[in-house]
Amino acid sequence: MKTIFSTRHEGHSGQMELVAGKIVPGFEKPVRARYIRERVDQVRLGPVSEPDEHPLDAARRVHRDDYLDFLPTVWPRWTESGHGGSAMPFAWPTRGLRGDVPPKAIEAALGFYSFDAGASFVEGTWEAIKSSYDTALTAARLVRDGERSAFALCRPPGHHAGSHFMGGYCYINNAAAAAQWLSDNGAGRVTILDIDYHHGNGTQEIFYSRGDIQVINLHADPLMEYPFYLGHADETGSGAGEGANHNYPLPFGTGWAEWSMALEDACARLARFSPEVVVVSLGVDTFEKDPISRFRLTSGDYPLIGRRIAALNRATLFVMEGGYAVEEIGINAVGVLTGFEDA
Amino acid sequence: MKTIFSTRHEGHSGQMELVAGKIVPGFEKPVRARYIRERVDQVRLGPVSEPDEHPLDAARRVHRDDYLDFLPTVWPRWTESGHGGSAMPFAWPTRGLRGDVPPKAIEAALGFYSFDAGASFVEGTWEAIKSSYDTALTAARLVRDGERSAFALCRPPGHHAGSHFMGGYCYINNAAAAAQWLSDNGAGRVTILDIDYHHGNGTQEIFYSRGDIQVINLHADPLMEYPFYLGHADETGSGAGEGANHNYPLPFGTGWAEWSMALEDACARLARFSPEVVVVSLGVDTFEKDPISRFRLTSGDYPLIGRRIAALNRATLFVMEGGYAVEEIGINAVGVLTGFEDA
Repeated sequence: MKTIFSTRHEGHSGQMELVAGKIVPGFEKPVRARYIRERVDQVRLGPVSEPDEHPLDAARRVHRDDYLDFLPTVWPRWTESGHGGSAMPFAWPTRGLRGDVPPKAIEAALGFYSFDAGASFVEGTWEAIKSSYDTALTAARLVRDGERSAFALCRPPGHHAGSHFMGGYCYINNAAAAAQWLSDNGAGRVTILDIDYHHGNGTQEIFYSRGDIQVINLHADPLMEYPFYLGHADETGSGAGEGANHNYPLPFGTGWAEWSMALEDACARLARFSPEVVVVSLGVDTFEKDPISRFRLTSGDYPLIGRRIAALNRATLFVMEGGYAVEEIGINAVGVLTGFEDA
Repeated sequence: MKTIFSTRHEGHSGQMELVAGKIVPGFEKPVRARYIRERVDQVRLGPVSEPDEHPLDAARRVHRDDYLDFLPTVWPRWTESGHGGSAMPFAWPTRGLRGDVPPKAIEAALGFYSFDAGASFVEGTWEAIKSSYDTALTAARLVRDGERSAFALCRPPGHHAGSHFMGGYCYINNAAAAAQWLSDNGAGRVTILDIDYHHGNGTQEIFYSRGDIQVINLHADPLMEYPFYLGHADETGSGAGEGANHNYPLPFGTGWAEWSMALEDACARLARFSPEVVVVSLGVDTFEKDPISRFRLTSGDYPLIGRRIAALNRATLFVMEGGYAVEEIGINAVGVLTGFEDA
C-alpha cells in the first residue's frame, strides 16, 4: 500500500486546547504523525510519497466558501489583534444566539465557525491544514487511478469539521473532501466508515441529506463522550439521505468482542449500500491505553480490523484521524493497514 | 431609595474564565459588590436590608425546569468527576450539533446549558446565584408594595442568562425573574431597560415572543463585542412580541453625546409602551476606564442617566448587572441611583 505524507504538518505545533477548566498543550501533536511514518517504514508497508498541491475545489464541495476563506486569515488576524499563544474562541453561536450574521472581531469569528476551543491556531496551522488536505486528495487519486488501497497520513485530522465549522483538532474534513472528489471523479457511490473513538460529527453533518455518500460511525456514546451533542442511534439521515447515515454509539469500556460485533453489522450495512470506494476515517484512539479515550482495543485487534475491511472487496482509501497514545499509535494505525494487505 | 444586599455572594470567588486563549481570574469578583455597597452608605442612599428567601417559582416562569434543577448540582458533580479549579464546559451544542438530547457527562451538561466558558462554578457559586435571585425578588416586592424605586444589589449578574442557558457571568436572569414576578403580581406591563455595555442576550431570548414585557437594550455593537451573536438592530421581537424588543447597537468609542441620544430614543419608545414598572438592568461597564469595555462614559454622566429614567415617572427597580472598573464601580452605579433620587 502506498502512503502519502508531508512534513509540512510540523509547524502546527505547540497549540493549546481547553479541557476541564484548563488550557493545556494539545494532545494532537506532531509526534503522532512521525510515529506512524516511522512504523510505515519499519513494516515496509510500501512507498511513501509527498502529496501534490491541490486547489481547494474539492474542499469547496463539502465546506462553505466563507468558512474556507476564513481559515488562512485566522493567525494573521489574531496576531494583528495583539494576541499571542493559540488563537481560540471564547463564545459560540448557540442557545438563542444567531449563526447567520458573521461578526467582525476575530475572537468572535473563531467562535462563529466552531463548536469548541479544540481547533486552535498557531503560526503553522494553515500550512498544516492545506498539507493534510493535499495528502488526502493525492491518496484519493491513487485509488481513482486503480490502486486497491492507499494511506493518507493526514495531520491535522478532519472528521469533526463540518460544512462551516471546525472543532476537535479538525479544520478541513479530509475524508469528506476525498470522498466527494472520488464521487466527482468516477466513483458513483462512496461509503465513509469512521472507526475513530469519537463520533465524526462533521462528516455526518456534511452528508446528512445526501443519498450518494453513506456515512457509518462507530464511536463512544455521545451521552458520555465528546463531541457529546451528535452521534446518537436515531440519526439516520434526512431527505434523500434517509437511511444513508448510521451510528453505533458504544459504552465506555467497549472491548474487541462488542466493538467487532458493531463493525460486523456496519460492514453488512456497507455491503448493502454497495459503494465503489470505501473511505476509512482511521482513528486508533479506541486503544486501551489511549490517554483521552475509554475503549479497550489491544494492538492485536487492529490487524483484524484491516482484514475485515479488506473482505469488503472495495477500493479503499485510509485517511488518518485520531489516536493519542503516542508510543503505540504507529503500531496500531499501521496494524490496520498491514491487516488489510495481508488479507 | 432602599437597597437589598446580601454578603452570601462572597463564596462565588476565585472562579476562572476563558478569554483570548487563556484561562484568567474572572473579572466578575466579590469586590465589585463590596465597592457598591460601601458607596450606598457613603452617599446615604437609604437603608440596606438583607433579602428574604424566595422559592424558585418566579425563576421557573422565565427558565426551564431542567436548567434550574441543573444549576445546584454542578459543583458536586464536577468534584465527584475528579475535577478541581473552576467548573466550565469545553464544547457547545452549536453548528449542526443537537441541543435536544441532554448528555450525562457533567463536562457536557455544562456546555449543553451555556454559550461560553464565562459562567464557571466554584464551591460557593450556587449560594451566590440563589442569593442574587432572592435580592432581586425582595427588591421587586418593595416596588410592588408601593416604593417609587428600589435597588437590587445583585451579584452574580443575570442578563446573559436565557431560558435554558448561562454565560457571561450570568446564571439566573435576576432582572427577567423580577420583571416576571412584577407582571404576575399586579403590574400589567413591564419594560426592561438594559443599559449594560453588553447586549442582554438572555433577557431578549426569554421575552422575544411576548408582548407584555418590553425589552430595550443599549450596548456595544455585537459585530465587534461580546456576546457577538445577538443584539442587532433588526431583532424586533416575534409573534405577539413583534415590536416589543428593541436594540441600540453602538460603536466602540461611544461617549455621552451619542449614548444619551440612544437613551432618549429608548425612553420615548418606553413611554409609548407605557409600562407600570421599569426594571433597569444596571451595568456601568460603559465607563471610560472599564477594563473590558470600550465606551467613554464618565462618572459625571451616570447621575444624568438616573435623572432621565426618573423623568419617565414609573415605579423603577434597579437590578445590578456588569461593571468591572472596581475603583469607580460604586461611584458610577450609585451615581445613577442618586441622579434618580435627586430628579
